[in-house]
Parts: sequence; C-alpha cells; structure tokens
Amino acid sequence: MSELKRVRAAVLLIGDELLSGRTQDLNLREIALFLAPLGVQVAEARVVSDEIEEVAEALNALRSRYDYVFTTGGIGPTHDDKTADAIAHAFGVGIDVHPEARAILETHYKSGPLNEARLRMARIPDGGVLIDNPVSKAPGFMVGNVFVLAGVPSIMRGMLLGVGPHIKGGAVVAARTLRCKGLREGDVAAGLTALDEKFAGVSFGSYPWFGPEGIGTHLVARSADPVALEAAVAELAALVQSLGVEPVEIEA
Amino acid sequence: MSELKRVRAAVLLIGDELLSGRTQDLNLREIALFLAPLGVQVAEARVVSDEIEEVAEALNALRSRYDYVFTTGGIGPTHDDKTADAIAHAFGVGIDVHPEARAILETHYKSGPLNEARLRMARIPDGGVLIDNPVSKAPGFMVGNVFVLAGVPSIMRGMLLGVGPHIKGGAVVAARTLRCKGLREGDVAAGLTALDEKFAGVSFGSYPWFGPEGIGTHLVARSADPVALEAAVAELAALVQSLGVEPVEIEA
Repeated sequence: MSELKRVRAAVLLIGDELLSGRTQDLNLREIALFLAPLGVQVAEARVVSDEIEEVAEALNALRSRYDYVFTTGGIGPTHDDKTADAIAHAFGVGIDVHPEARAILETHYKSGPLNEARLRMARIPDGGVLIDNPVSKAPGFMVGNVFVLAGVPSIMRGMLLGVGPHIKGGAVVAARTLRCKGLREGDVAAGLTALDEKFAGVSFGSYPWFGPEGIGTHLVARSADPVALEAAVAELAALVQSLGVEPVEIEA
Repeated sequence: MSELKRVRAAVLLIGDELLSGRTQDLNLREIALFLAPLGVQVAEARVVSDEIEEVAEALNALRSRYDYVFTTGGIGPTHDDKTADAIAHAFGVGIDVHPEARAILETHYKSGPLNEARLRMARIPDGGVLIDNPVSKAPGFMVGNVFVLAGVPSIMRGMLLGVGPHIKGGAVVAARTLRCKGLREGDVAAGLTALDEKFAGVSFGSYPWFGPEGIGTHLVARSADPVALEAAVAELAALVQSLGVEPVEIEA
C-alpha cells in the first residue's frame, strides 16, 4: 500500500472542576470520535486548571508537537474563564473585542443586558477566526492550529459542526472489535503478541470485561490499511477459536 | 490562620483506548474524589498512548513537579501493557519478577496456568512496593512518589484502598455549592469577580446548567480555610439573592 499520512491532534481540557472531580469530562471521547472519520487521531490529552500560565505552557507544548489542538472550557463570562487570554499569551498576540463576535452577542442579548461580563465572550486573540456556536451563540474560535471550544458538552458538540471544514485529515484509522465471552487475557496474550509482531501496520488492543453475564475480553485491531486490517481480524478470530471461544464482531 | 501546606498530585491515564474514544475515562474523577479528603489536590492530568517513551516522558515531567503521581492502565498481561517497563525506564532502574507478586499470582492461578503472559503482571521495577489488588489479585505498585494502578475502574478503586496509608496529605480543600435556578452567569459575573478579589484564600467557580427544569448556574466556593469559606459562602448567597434568585446549597 502507499504511504498514508498520519494527522494527529491533542486535546487540552481546561477547568478546575475536572481536576477536583466535581465534573466528569465527556469531551475528550466526543472529540476523538468526531475526528476519527476525518482522518485525525487524538494522540495526547491534558487537563489543566484555570490558570493562564498553565494553559499557555500546555498549549505551547502541544501545538508544536501535533497537527491540531482542541481546547475545551474557560470561554464563558465569569472571572474564572481565562482561556482566551491564555491563548493570546501562548501565541504572543494581543486580544480585543472582535466586531463580528460582538455583533453576534448584541443580536442574542437584545432582550437582556450585553454587560461587560458578557462582552468578555467577544474577546478574541488577534488573528482568530470565529467558530459558530449554534447552541448558545457566544462563539468559539480558531488561532493557528488551535481550536478553542466551550466546556459544556452540548455546546462543545454544536461547535464541532463548524470545525470540520477547517480540518485537513490524513489516513483514516479503522477499528474492528471482537467480543470474546469467557476469554481471559492471559490465555490469548501469547498469540496476540505473535499477531502484533506479524502485522506491522496493525495495532492490537485487549480489554477485559466483567459483567452480569460473566467475564470476557474485547480484542480490537486498528489500522489505516483496510487490506491488512481484514487479514489481521481473520487471524485474530482464528486465534480466539483455537482457544475454544467463538468471537462475535461488534460495533465499538 | 496559619499557613497550610498544599499537597498536589498529577494523574497519568495510559491507554490508546482513551485517546481513540473507545473507552470513557472514569478514573480521573475517582482519584480526585478519593484524594480530596486526604488533603491532596489533583493539579494536572495527562492521557498518553501505550508507548514506553511517551509514558516515561510524561511521568518524568509530572513526578518532578508534583508531590504524587497516579498512573492508571497498562499493567495487564498482554503485549500492549507497557506501563511497568515505562516506569522502570523513567526511573532508570531495572525490572524483574517480584517474588511476592509472583507468590500472589501463584496462589490465584493455582487452578489455571500461570503462563509467561500472566507472569508479566509480577514484573515490578526495582525498589517498587506492591499495592494490594483485592479485586483481581495482580498487584499495583509504588515507586518513589508514583502509584501505578490498574485501568479497569472497579480494579483501580480496589487498589486505592491500599494507597491511603502511603499518603502524607496537607490542607484539605473544602468546596460548597450553591444551586441557583434561573441565574445566568453573565448576570452574576461582576459580583463574582468582586468576591474573588475580596477573598484571597477562596476560589470561586461558576458552572451553567441547562436541563428539563430550565437553566441555572452552580456557584462553587473552594478553600482550605473553613472560616474564610463560611464568610465567602454567606456573601455569595447574598449576592445571588440581590439578583432576585434564591440559592439552594447542595452536595456536589
């Protein structure tokens, strides 16, 4: 097969509430599942507090290493929303009220006060391009290879709709999952290692489960090469069958 | 009040399945909620893939910066479980089958094969201290200020029981939450900024919500100083009332 370009992204989750355990993050998984069919793999994620220096340091580490960075959180109207300032700081650019963002908020808040706090949501680092927010209007934005999205999952999901056109993806990595009821990881491990060594372009994962119907293992093969993946899954299924377990392919 | 010592931890979540979106992480929140009453605050988290270099690099960045590091994932019997080797690599120490860990596995697998793959789970970096696994026996371990725990949430939770005695905590940060139905962040932001400036030892967070019963905001005050926290919550409640909303304190 021809060489396929790998495009990789990082996710930077911003918010004290994620680190204190107050809030369960749902955005990392959502972003990963959104990007995969576009040919972008999430390769690293970080969670940092609402501190400008910490956000900027993590952002600079990630944006130089990966093709894209997606941040979530910290773009609301209150004092603990510091992401826009942190992005400007990281890029070494200024930040000011963006006329287009201001116009969006003026339309949205025509029945209520567009006060100073809400106007904070129109402050965009210089050079930023707005990302539409179909849910609650205050826009996200894009600076360089960094997409700055809301933290509330329903709003974040809405903003992702506006992200797609900006993405230049590469090879799409497909995953196929065999559900193997009764299979213990320790019994399939040696065979799995052999397959992993045989198929250079395929990665294999093994995930044990414990449930009301007993125990088992999900075996996952991932590859950007459909032909190699097909062959790998066939050998994986044969391996499981040789251990006396009938694998069932599932969507996962 | 007297100066209270802050003890901070980082969490390092290891696994391709977290980055691909296959698996929703639940461990960060669980660890944060476990550590908070012990006087340890989670200050940063990272998610990396099952690659020795990436795990080791992240671990070295985190263990030098924070009092404790908690890793989850990658300590099973299969080829993609590389965490123990990565920890040894990061610390620059050897790794070998630990006699005590081997004995635990021999007892557990006496009715089945303790094969080479399962023996991988007894490989512990030199100097490592075992952490009991009451759920599925194969132990976690502690090296220096790093705790190495399982990735499966139910097993990880079991291992946390053995972590407590090793922790020297500091100031306990308490959080109090006011549920403010009908309150919009943009209306309370200015008052919240004033409170944040007034109470140096208290941090304030604002989290909007949207649900079947309408919209609202959770306002959270956090502090290691009980007296300051009490005063801050009283002023926070008064602020909300001044905006025509009756706050309700909730557990959260």
